[in-house]
Amino acid sequence: MIRSVILVSGGMDSLVTAAIAKKESDEVFFLHLNYGQLTERKEKECFQKLVGFYQPKEVMLLDIPQFRSIGSSSLIDMNIPLDTQQTGIKVPNTYVPFRNGNFLAIAAGWAEVLAAGRIYIGAVEEDSSGYPDCRESFFRAFERSIHLGTKSETNIRIFTPVIHLKKAEIVKLGKRLAVPFQYSWSCYRDQDLACGTCDSCILRLKAFRDAGMQDPIPYRQKKP
Amino acid sequence: MIRSVILVSGGMDSLVTAAIAKKESDEVFFLHLNYGQLTERKEKECFQKLVGFYQPKEVMLLDIPQFRSIGSSSLIDMNIPLDTQQTGIKVPNTYVPFRNGNFLAIAAGWAEVLAAGRIYIGAVEEDSSGYPDCRESFFRAFERSIHLGTKSETNIRIFTPVIHLKKAEIVKLGKRLAVPFQYSWSCYRDQDLACGTCDSCILRLKAFRDAGMQDPIPYRQKKP
Repeated sequence: MIRSVILVSGGMDSLVTAAIAKKESDEVFFLHLNYGQLTERKEKECFQKLVGFYQPKEVMLLDIPQFRSIGSSSLIDMNIPLDTQQTGIKVPNTYVPFRNGNFLAIAAGWAEVLAAGRIYIGAVEEDSSGYPDCRESFFRAFERSIHLGTKSETNIRIFTPVIHLKKAEIVKLGKRLAVPFQYSWSCYRDQDLACGTCDSCILRLKAFRDAGMQDPIPYRQKKP
Repeated sequence: MIRSVILVSGGMDSLVTAAIAKKESDEVFFLHLNYGQLTERKEKECFQKLVGFYQPKEVMLLDIPQFRSIGSSSLIDMNIPLDTQQTGIKVPNTYVPFRNGNFLAIAAGWAEVLAAGRIYIGAVEEDSSGYPDCRESFFRAFERSIHLGTKSETNIRIFTPVIHLKKAEIVKLGKRLAVPFQYSWSCYRDQDLACGTCDSCILRLKAFRDAGMQDPIPYRQKKP
């Protein structure tokens, strides 16, 4: 019996990850974390549609306060202008400090109580913004800390099935898995229509274009 | 300039740890986490007195929801009768799943933003209840996951200065450091007076006795 806790943000990467986890598991448990991100409302809306679509055995939806208090990320604080144009040199200010460490710690506690052996997270290393907590090496180290910090009968592994894929490959894989891309949200900025101009929208639009597909969500504006 | 984030629960171990951190650091930042533990009110009261006593540069006090939702611990759920008499064979039901992993993840995010190089936590391995997330090996693994999951310029180490001490040694050390033991709370049960009969009270009372000291807090009852 394979039970899996899946971190589902409402974004494209976690959507495809959820579809993979669903195929690979007997029971799935969806975990969604609101942390004060400016696009929280829209992400939660997508998450709830995905719950309807994938019918997980249980859902946990939490509002976690730490990042609102800690601040420092343009994803949370409106007063920090969004970094655009990833340089690849420095970590962009959309980085939320040790976010995946916080997410995985919550997932690990829940997984331990559920006796779930797997945590799925839709992190992407190569084609992403250079966030340190999206690296494969980080996940392996965190897995080890879960192993040492939980009961001896608890055995949890972290699965990152899209970590080495390019965005266009994720779109193609999602198409093969018939994922409902219309229930996913990537934009860093707007809440009604995706802006089409932030780094995240640009990456998404390019990914669909490279995959030869039409993105089903509407945009306020699309760069030519 | 040594800046340190200290996890301060209001218990005896974290109090002595805070006193050590204060001596070893130029600036200290106190982090207190309410997670639905039944003794939250009393612990927060102690924490606030400790803030007055030690005057940290900043304080962060958060209510975190995950353990209330996950449940499974008698520290949180009144319907689970408290395990008494530590057998040393199995982890007692006071264990909160991956609690220190969750605490350290929050501390790491804050430390990164503060550019603090140290996190202090008052975990005790040997004389404790056999919680897996109190082991030295866990802290070393978690430190590595912080290293890999934060920016390259971030360099955070985890300090556990009382981890290998017996409770009586912690009391003696606290005495040498002139810590205000009257502002600490250990009881798992009551909120006005310490019960004197739960495992935590018994350990504390024995520690003071072994250290040849009088515990300054009042008890409802003391086992002979």
